[in-house]
Amino acid sequence: MADILVTGGTGFIGANLVNELRERDHNVWTLDIDFSPDERHYRVDIGEYRQLRDVFDEHDFDYVYNAAAEYGRWNGEDHYENLWQTNAVGTKNILRIQADEGFRLIDFSSAEVYGDHSGTMTEELTEEQSFRLMNDYAMSKRVNEMQVRNAMEKFGTESVMVRPVNCYGPQEHYSEYRGVVPIFIWHALNDKPYTVYEGHKRIFDYVGDTARTLANIVDNFHPGEVYNLGGNPDWEISIGELSDLILDYLDKDDGIVTYEEKEEMTTDVKRIDSTKARDHLNHDPQVPPEEGIPETIEWFKSEYDL
Amino acid sequence: MADILVTGGTGFIGANLVNELRERDHNVWTLDIDFSPDERHYRVDIGEYRQLRDVFDEHDFDYVYNAAAEYGRWNGEDHYENLWQTNAVGTKNILRIQADEGFRLIDFSSAEVYGDHSGTMTEELTEEQSFRLMNDYAMSKRVNEMQVRNAMEKFGTESVMVRPVNCYGPQEHYSEYRGVVPIFIWHALNDKPYTVYEGHKRIFDYVGDTARTLANIVDNFHPGEVYNLGGNPDWEISIGELSDLILDYLDKDDGIVTYEEKEEMTTDVKRIDSTKARDHLNHDPQVPPEEGIPETIEWFKSEYDL
Repeated sequence: MADILVTGGTGFIGANLVNELRERDHNVWTLDIDFSPDERHYRVDIGEYRQLRDVFDEHDFDYVYNAAAEYGRWNGEDHYENLWQTNAVGTKNILRIQADEGFRLIDFSSAEVYGDHSGTMTEELTEEQSFRLMNDYAMSKRVNEMQVRNAMEKFGTESVMVRPVNCYGPQEHYSEYRGVVPIFIWHALNDKPYTVYEGHKRIFDYVGDTARTLANIVDNFHPGEVYNLGGNPDWEISIGELSDLILDYLDKDDGIVTYEEKEEMTTDVKRIDSTKARDHLNHDPQVPPEEGIPETIEWFKSEYDL
Repeated sequence: MADILVTGGTGFIGANLVNELRERDHNVWTLDIDFSPDERHYRVDIGEYRQLRDVFDEHDFDYVYNAAAEYGRWNGEDHYENLWQTNAVGTKNILRIQADEGFRLIDFSSAEVYGDHSGTMTEELTEEQSFRLMNDYAMSKRVNEMQVRNAMEKFGTESVMVRPVNCYGPQEHYSEYRGVVPIFIWHALNDKPYTVYEGHKRIFDYVGDTARTLANIVDNFHPGEVYNLGGNPDWEISIGELSDLILDYLDKDDGIVTYEEKEEMTTDVKRIDSTKARDHLNHDPQVPPEEGIPETIEWFKSEYDL
């Protein structure tokens, strides 16, 4: 059993990961910019070094999952000050403390680092090819990966990086900046109009599947590796099909939907290769959208009393 | 005659550029985190939006040279909080104001964006190949270039980017984080020990030459272009030869010098292709190290009473 800290532990992927790790009997603490009633929670902004340093003075951890981040393409454009402070400075803070403390780090990147690449995304591509990154959020995540690699070389630390893509599911609270799944569900549940950009396709990954793979890293730690974490390629659907799936489950028609061709500065199709995560981490997505979307809708209904 | 703002206008390249632009009878204002007695100076931290916004509410500019930045590889590692705030957030602040005001922007990047590339550096390489960026300063400059490109596409603004490399000369004040030229001169003048990493070669570019080319952009503005700005390739010298040049001019021996093979996480050889700057901007370096180094030493003597 390991002592584990999950930054962003009250956030979407963080909360799911914490549940998974606790079910495996690890000793798990959370850390987040947000408050939590959990007795094992630290309220800390990772962009503020002193707050973070205090946590590590109080407790030694074997593993730190750094899932804290300003998330989302448009969030990063509207709140770029927060984005750079949390993502670039915050990650650097963690890397400096790691150099002193020696914990193993699992740092969260994003498939956004592939930019507008339209072919299959394999991990090593980012080391060879230059991708056009269309937003500051993507840039900050690419910066994080380089910061992690440089820190490993400079300080001899051990880290792994993960690139989730289109992860969705319970615990992802709605805001206008979240992924397309919570945005569509929120609007459909509240009968509010929303726009479907039909020119885009995605493979959605259910967070329960992602969390299991993430938790597996503790037992299969390959320092220096970066892993794509995507759903089953057979599950690729268009954004229009996603919308239909939600509306069908709710027995609603698409009267609230405006259809448009493409969203500006957004990848058309994301096809991600998660072979390495399957090989190293037993990544094995089980939940197709037909199951995961209804689960997520039910969580929304219960969470928001809808 | 144009109304021009130079951010970082009291800094090294900024101060030289301001002189050059004023000699050409442009109306030039400076802006810097530092104070200045100049009546046409704004004391502003570009990382602070309100301070920057006030300047543009007060004055309309035709051109803005954004030379303000946290500079230097090791400075960025030791002061990464300042680096990301000034370079990433600060540039984004300027781009947002540009979207409102419509001035033409000349944004300062760096040849650090070529990372550990050992071949000749041509501008389009960064769009094709992925380079290992070995420090946060390099990353922040690469981020700036992408921010500028995205802003041009999103807001229809007009910008040009420049990548100076190994620029040196008068007005570069000494700190431990500055370039190798002021570091060697400072130590040699003060008889303080310094280290020469013999495994590195550079082409040094005299700031007077750089400033002339930069000033030419106003008359030869090609939106979207990025320019390498380097010295004459014939002037390539090793770091050891640079040290000898300085010591010879000062009639000192190399007793204060420790020789080592290579500096960690630093490019071995930088060979930069400035053909595009020659074609578009009449970039035409005139001052070889044999002339520029003595000029710089004389400036140091006078500036620091040495």
